[in-house]
Amino acid sequence: MKLINSFGPNPRMVRMFLVERGIELATEELDLLAGENRQAAYTARNPGGQMPALELDDGSVLAETTCICEYLDEKHPGQSLLGESLEERASNRMWTRRVELNITENIYNAFRYSEGLELFKDRLHCIPEAADGLKAKSRGQLEWLDGLMADREYVGGDNLGLADLVLYCCLDFAAGIGQALNPELKNIGAWFQRMEQRPSAQGSLHPSSAAVGMKG
Amino acid sequence: MKLINSFGPNPRMVRMFLVERGIELATEELDLLAGENRQAAYTARNPGGQMPALELDDGSVLAETTCICEYLDEKHPGQSLLGESLEERASNRMWTRRVELNITENIYNAFRYSEGLELFKDRLHCIPEAADGLKAKSRGQLEWLDGLMADREYVGGDNLGLADLVLYCCLDFAAGIGQALNPELKNIGAWFQRMEQRPSAQGSLHPSSAAVGMKG
Repeated sequence: MKLINSFGPNPRMVRMFLVERGIELATEELDLLAGENRQAAYTARNPGGQMPALELDDGSVLAETTCICEYLDEKHPGQSLLGESLEERASNRMWTRRVELNITENIYNAFRYSEGLELFKDRLHCIPEAADGLKAKSRGQLEWLDGLMADREYVGGDNLGLADLVLYCCLDFAAGIGQALNPELKNIGAWFQRMEQRPSAQGSLHPSSAAVGMKG
Repeated sequence: MKLINSFGPNPRMVRMFLVERGIELATEELDLLAGENRQAAYTARNPGGQMPALELDDGSVLAETTCICEYLDEKHPGQSLLGESLEERASNRMWTRRVELNITENIYNAFRYSEGLELFKDRLHCIPEAADGLKAKSRGQLEWLDGLMADREYVGGDNLGLADLVLYCCLDFAAGIGQALNPELKNIGAWFQRMEQRPSAQGSLHPSSAAVGMKG
């Protein structure tokens, strides 16, 4: 099994998951900034064209960040990051989906349609006129989540879950692309600081992160 | 356990799943069109405010359509709709996430921001200027999926999966709100006809569907 890896907040989320779970994988590096993930050699393996992906031992390729993490979580013995009971796992999936659909997908798409437009305009269908609205939408949804987090340590409750990694890697990236977290969101701000202190936060950054000037 | 149920393509997807899996649940009805799901009595139970949700036996509430289905699939013996092996389940999740992020979320949001704006403008942060772009984006992603489906029966391969139900309920709804499927997409067109003939397609429609004039 090997991780098809690159710079970027999405590959970073999977790397952060690997550090948290103590899983080591061989890696194959692709140049995301040069668009290697949108070329035929890669899209034949992962028709979604995004990064990262996981090549299984039979040569098949599993893509989609959260699905890769959930698969690795099930496959590896040890302390699960999604919970042990069916109810815990369902709740973890719920919070991950909420974070993605309400917040992180809006932040990433807003970036692709504005500050990142030059990089993405020939790779994806971009909607520049949606960028400001998407930024405002994610800000509103972060306010909603901040209210819910008044009495909990992590996004989904008392335990670290996949949703925390998804949100943390996105917000750390977002701060470098003009979508800094609103400092009035005290609960998310405190949670972000706790996340930042985890060894997996530093341990998941790509070696080229400093050179690129973004947290990915 | 009971399903908090209403008219709508998202509740319908969960109902279609229940029919496919042969699971019967008690239901509690909410009036989605009147916005009952956005009132405090409901958002205290499901802070996401969407429909449907699943009330578990301990009184806790599980929301998010695909998470409800996956939980019920794990909980009930019988032919799984997500697959038996870890690899099958991971692949199913991958295709479901792809269908949601690339296609169905764009269709639903485009509807909320245009034809559905009157209904949604006081419930959600709407981005009317994004509607046309989102419609074009989902059309493009349906073309992408059509190409991938040239040699397979279902979205994720040879077996019916959750991604099929998510996509079918969305496209059946979309046809009634000005986002009809492009007839040139022969593979998805043929798949849609196969899905339409499943007993779960008719069996999942809400009784008020005809009166509302939409497939939900």
